[in-house]
Amino acid sequence: MGAVRNILFIMCDQLRWDYLSCYGHPKLDTPNIDGLAARGVRFDGAYCQSPVCGASRMSFYTGRYVNSHGASWNFVPLRIGEQTIGDHLRPRGIRAALVGKTHMRADFAGMARLGIDLHSDEGVLAAECGFEPFERDDGVHPSSSHDPNPRYNRYLRDHGFEADNPWEDWANSAEGPDGELLSGWYLENSNKPARVPAEHSETAYMTGRAIDFLDDAGDEPFCLHLSYIKPHWPYMAPAPYATMYGPEDTYPAVRSDEEKRDPHPVFGAFIDQRVSRTLSRDEVRDAVLPGYMGMIKQIDDEIGRLLEALEARGRMDDTMIVFTSDHGDYLGDHWMGEKDLFHQPSVRIPLIVHDPSPEADATRGSASDALVEAIDLAPTFVEAIGGYPQPHIFDGRSLTPLLHGETPDGWRSYVISEYDYAFMDPRRALGTKPRDCWLRMVFDGRFKYVDCGDYRPMLFDLKEDPQELRDLGADPACESERARLKDLLFDWAMKPRHRVTVTDGMLETVDVQRNITEAGVLIGYYDRNDLEKAAASWQDRPIFAAFNPVWAKAQKKLRGEDSS
Amino acid sequence: MGAVRNILFIMCDQLRWDYLSCYGHPKLDTPNIDGLAARGVRFDGAYCQSPVCGASRMSFYTGRYVNSHGASWNFVPLRIGEQTIGDHLRPRGIRAALVGKTHMRADFAGMARLGIDLHSDEGVLAAECGFEPFERDDGVHPSSSHDPNPRYNRYLRDHGFEADNPWEDWANSAEGPDGELLSGWYLENSNKPARVPAEHSETAYMTGRAIDFLDDAGDEPFCLHLSYIKPHWPYMAPAPYATMYGPEDTYPAVRSDEEKRDPHPVFGAFIDQRVSRTLSRDEVRDAVLPGYMGMIKQIDDEIGRLLEALEARGRMDDTMIVFTSDHGDYLGDHWMGEKDLFHQPSVRIPLIVHDPSPEADATRGSASDALVEAIDLAPTFVEAIGGYPQPHIFDGRSLTPLLHGETPDGWRSYVISEYDYAFMDPRRALGTKPRDCWLRMVFDGRFKYVDCGDYRPMLFDLKEDPQELRDLGADPACESERARLKDLLFDWAMKPRHRVTVTDGMLETVDVQRNITEAGVLIGYYDRNDLEKAAASWQDRPIFAAFNPVWAKAQKKLRGEDSS
Repeated sequence: MGAVRNILFIMCDQLRWDYLSCYGHPKLDTPNIDGLAARGVRFDGAYCQSPVCGASRMSFYTGRYVNSHGASWNFVPLRIGEQTIGDHLRPRGIRAALVGKTHMRADFAGMARLGIDLHSDEGVLAAECGFEPFERDDGVHPSSSHDPNPRYNRYLRDHGFEADNPWEDWANSAEGPDGELLSGWYLENSNKPARVPAEHSETAYMTGRAIDFLDDAGDEPFCLHLSYIKPHWPYMAPAPYATMYGPEDTYPAVRSDEEKRDPHPVFGAFIDQRVSRTLSRDEVRDAVLPGYMGMIKQIDDEIGRLLEALEARGRMDDTMIVFTSDHGDYLGDHWMGEKDLFHQPSVRIPLIVHDPSPEADATRGSASDALVEAIDLAPTFVEAIGGYPQPHIFDGRSLTPLLHGETPDGWRSYVISEYDYAFMDPRRALGTKPRDCWLRMVFDGRFKYVDCGDYRPMLFDLKEDPQELRDLGADPACESERARLKDLLFDWAMKPRHRVTVTDGMLETVDVQRNITEAGVLIGYYDRNDLEKAAASWQDRPIFAAFNPVWAKAQKKLRGEDSS
Repeated sequence: MGAVRNILFIMCDQLRWDYLSCYGHPKLDTPNIDGLAARGVRFDGAYCQSPVCGASRMSFYTGRYVNSHGASWNFVPLRIGEQTIGDHLRPRGIRAALVGKTHMRADFAGMARLGIDLHSDEGVLAAECGFEPFERDDGVHPSSSHDPNPRYNRYLRDHGFEADNPWEDWANSAEGPDGELLSGWYLENSNKPARVPAEHSETAYMTGRAIDFLDDAGDEPFCLHLSYIKPHWPYMAPAPYATMYGPEDTYPAVRSDEEKRDPHPVFGAFIDQRVSRTLSRDEVRDAVLPGYMGMIKQIDDEIGRLLEALEARGRMDDTMIVFTSDHGDYLGDHWMGEKDLFHQPSVRIPLIVHDPSPEADATRGSASDALVEAIDLAPTFVEAIGGYPQPHIFDGRSLTPLLHGETPDGWRSYVISEYDYAFMDPRRALGTKPRDCWLRMVFDGRFKYVDCGDYRPMLFDLKEDPQELRDLGADPACESERARLKDLLFDWAMKPRHRVTVTDGMLETVDVQRNITEAGVLIGYYDRNDLEKAAASWQDRPIFAAFNPVWAKAQKKLRGEDSS
C-alpha cells in the first residue's frame, strides 16, 4: 500500500455536481476544488445512496445501502449496533473526528435498552455516529427548535454579534435599508448578503475548527470529517459572495410542460409540494441562485485556506483528501425544489479523491466514468490505511483500484439509490401507507429505472434524453428494458448484507462442516465404519489437537483408540 | 382483549408437522398435544422462516424475517440491537424466561464495541436472546466441545450417572450386551434405549425445570419459553419409548428416481452430502424412525405432565399455550437427511395455539388453513397481553383475529422462507461465493417457487404434485407461473423492515412536514406573504405552544407579532 496515513473527508450539503468549474460550470470558478481534482481523480459517475441528508449520510458513514442500515430519512435514528467509519478506523489507531454536520440521530431507545451510558466513551461514539465530536453542528438552528446554543452561537457572541440566536439573526439574515432583519428563511432574501462578515460566517468558522483539529491532532494519524452545512438552505452567503453572481451566470432551468401532463403519480405529488411550486417560479430561482453560487464560491476559497494549513503542517503527502456532497439540489429543474427524487441534479454527486500514494500518480488529474457510489468511501478509507475492506459489512467497494489506474474485474454495472417518502407530504397527498413509500432507483449509466412500489415504475433513457424530460415508465415500447432493469433490482435485493457478524473470509477459509464433525457433532454417520473412513482426513490437524486436548481425547475415543 | 396473562411457548426441535396424531399420523398417538389442539386452533398452513435451527429461531424470537434480523445460520451471532420476545414483553411487566434451547449466539464483538458489561442485567439479556436464562441448554454437548458442564450434567451426576460427560454417556448412549457404550451419534443405535431412565432423560428434566419455573414465578405474569432439544439428533429415546415403534408404523419414504436425474444443481449438491446419502439408505431410516418417534411420544407424555402442573397452579385459564417446532426433518424423503431445503417435511411446521380468552371459544378444536409464519408468534404474544404488535419491527402479524374466528382483511397470500447455505458443504461442492448462497422460497398455498440466486429457480405445484417430486423450475410451460411468483418475491423484498427506530404509528398520526415548519425550519417560502398564508393553519395548536414557549415566541416573531 501507499503512503496514506490520514484522511480528510470533506462533505458539502446539497451541492450539485455541476456547480463546480471542474465539472463544467460556465461561470462559477472553483480553482481550489479544481486543484484537488488536478491532483486526484474526478469521478463522473458518482451517486448518493439516497437523495436526502440523513439517509445519504448514514450510507456514507456505514458504507452500506439504506436497505442495510435502515435509517431511511432525516429523523430516523441509526439503529444501535451499526458500525461507521470511525468504528472501522479507530481499532487501527486512527483518530476519527467530526467538524460540522452528520445529521445522525442517535438510537437512544436502543442505548437505554442495552444499558449503554450516554456519557461513557462508547456511549458518546454511539450517539455521534462513531466520530469524536470535535465540533458537532448540524447547521440548522431556528430559534424555535434544535440546539439553542451551539458553539458557533457562542463564538458569534464572543465576536460581538449579539442576539438570542446569532446563527439566525447574523449568519442567516440580511439587513434592510432601515436596519430591519431580512430572514434567510425567505427565499426572496437569498441574493442579499448575510449580516455576518465572511470571516465569521459558518463556512469560515468550520474551516477554522478543522484547522484547530489539525493542530490538536499533531502527529497522531487522523480521519477528519469536515462537513459543511452550505450550500444547503438557508440560501444566504456573506459579502462579497452574495452578490458575485446573477441568475444569468448559470444554466437555464431544465423542465418542460410535457413533464406536468399526466405525470407519474408520485412525481405529480412531489411537484405539487410547496417547495416545488415555489422553486418553479422564475423570480424565486433568480433570487436563490446568487446565494447558492456565492456559498459555493466561499467554500472553494475556504478549501484553499484549509489545504494551505494542511501543507504548512506537512500533511499534504500522507493525507487522502476527499471532496463530495451528500446529494444535489433541483433548484427548479423538473419543476422541483429540494432533492428527494432521482433526476441527475438530485442524485448525482461530485466526488474528487486525492490519493497521495505513488501508486496513484498515474491517475492524477484524470476523470473516471466508473459507476461509483457514496458507500464506496468507507471501504476506500479502510483499505487506504492498510485495513481489509470487509465485504460482509460494506455494501460499497474500495475505490483503490480505480485510484491506482487499474481496471478491476467485474466492477459494478449499475448503481442503486433509495428514497423513503413516508415522512413527506406526497405520502399524505397520495394516501400511501408508511410502509409502502419506498422508491428504488437502478441506473446502469444509460437507463434509469425507479421502482415505485404499488405505482408503475419510472424510466429514463439518458442517452436519448440526457435531460430526463421523458418518463418512459408506461411506454409499451420499453417493456423489455424495464424488465431487464427490474431484474437487476431483484438481484440486488436478493443479496443483502445483513449477516454482519460473520466474515466472508471465515466462510472462504474454514470448512464449517468438518469443524462441526471434528468438534464431535456427528451428523449422518450410521456406524463406526462410516466414521473411521472419514476420520482418516482428520490426521492433518495436529495443531488443533495440541491446543484442544479435550478434543483430542474425544477423537481418540470416537476412533476406539481410547476406551476410558 | 381477553384473559391472557401468561404465555407458555413450547418448541420442539426438528419435529415434523406430520408426526403427531392430530396432524394425521397413523400410529404415533399424541393425546396430550392433540388435547391442546382440541382446546385451541391447529394451523395447517404454518411455515418456518428458515429450515435450520439458528436462523429459524431468531425469526421466532424477533418476529422478523431472516432478511431483517440477519442471523442466517447456526453460528451467526444475532447482531446487537435486535429485539426479541422478551424485550417486547418485559416493559409490560411480563417475566420472560427460557428453559432449554435457543441456539442464539451472542454478538460479543458488538457488545464489546458498545461497552456493554456481560454481567450487567442488560448484558445477560443481550447475550441470552432477551430471555432470563432460567435454564439455558442448547442440548448438544459432545465431549470435545460446547459447554463442558451444563446443569443437566451436574443433575445426572447428582443422581448417580457418573461420567466425564453424562449427557453423552448416559442420555445419548445405549449399552451393548457386554456393557459397552453404543453412541447415540451412530444412527445404527437410534432404535436402542438410552442408558438413562426416562424420568432423568433430557425431555423429562427440562419439563421438570419448566415446572420449577412455574413455582418460582408464583403470581408473577410470565412468558416461559420451554424449548425441547428433542426429537433432534442424537436420535435416541429412553425406555420404554425407544422400542414402542417400528419403521412399519410410519409413512413410506417419499422419493423417486426421477428426482435424481438431472437435478437442480443446488438440490443435487444437497442430496450428495453425507447425511443425505446416509438417510437415503433403508436400514438407516429403519433404525432412526423408532428413536425419532419414541422421542416424540415421550414429549407428548411430558407435555401431559406439564399441563397438569399448570392446571394445579390455577394457570390454565389465563395462559396462552403454543406448541410448535423450529423446522422439520427430511428423514430420507427426497433423498435428503436433516432439513435445509424447502420441501414440506422440512419447511412446514406444526403449530397449535390455545388462547384461553372467551373470544377464542368459537375456534376451539378447529383447524385453520391460513398461511401463517413463525414470525407471527411474537406479535401474537404482544397483542395477547394487551400490547400493540408494532408493525415497524415485526414482519409477522398477530394471529389474534384467526384465533378469534375473524377473517382478517388482506391476510397474507404467500409465505416466505430463506436459507443461507454459505456454511454448508454444497457451497464448497458448487464453488459458490459465501455472499451468493441465498435460497428464498415463496409459497402461495399451491405453487412453491425457490429463487436460487445465480442458478435457475425451483418450482413445485403442490396441487398436481402434492409430494413435490417434479421440479418445474426449468419447464417452459411454467414460465408465466414462475414470473408471477418471482414478482411476489420482488414485492416482498422491496418492503423490508429495516426502519426499526421510527414507528409507523408516528408517521400515520404526525404531520412531519408541518412539524418541521412549525419548528421554524421554513422550506420553500419566498416571502412573508407565503408564510402568513400557511401560518393560519397553525392556530389550532395551543397545546403545543403552551408546552413550548420558545416555539411560541419564535412563531410570533415569524408572523411579525413580536419584533423583539
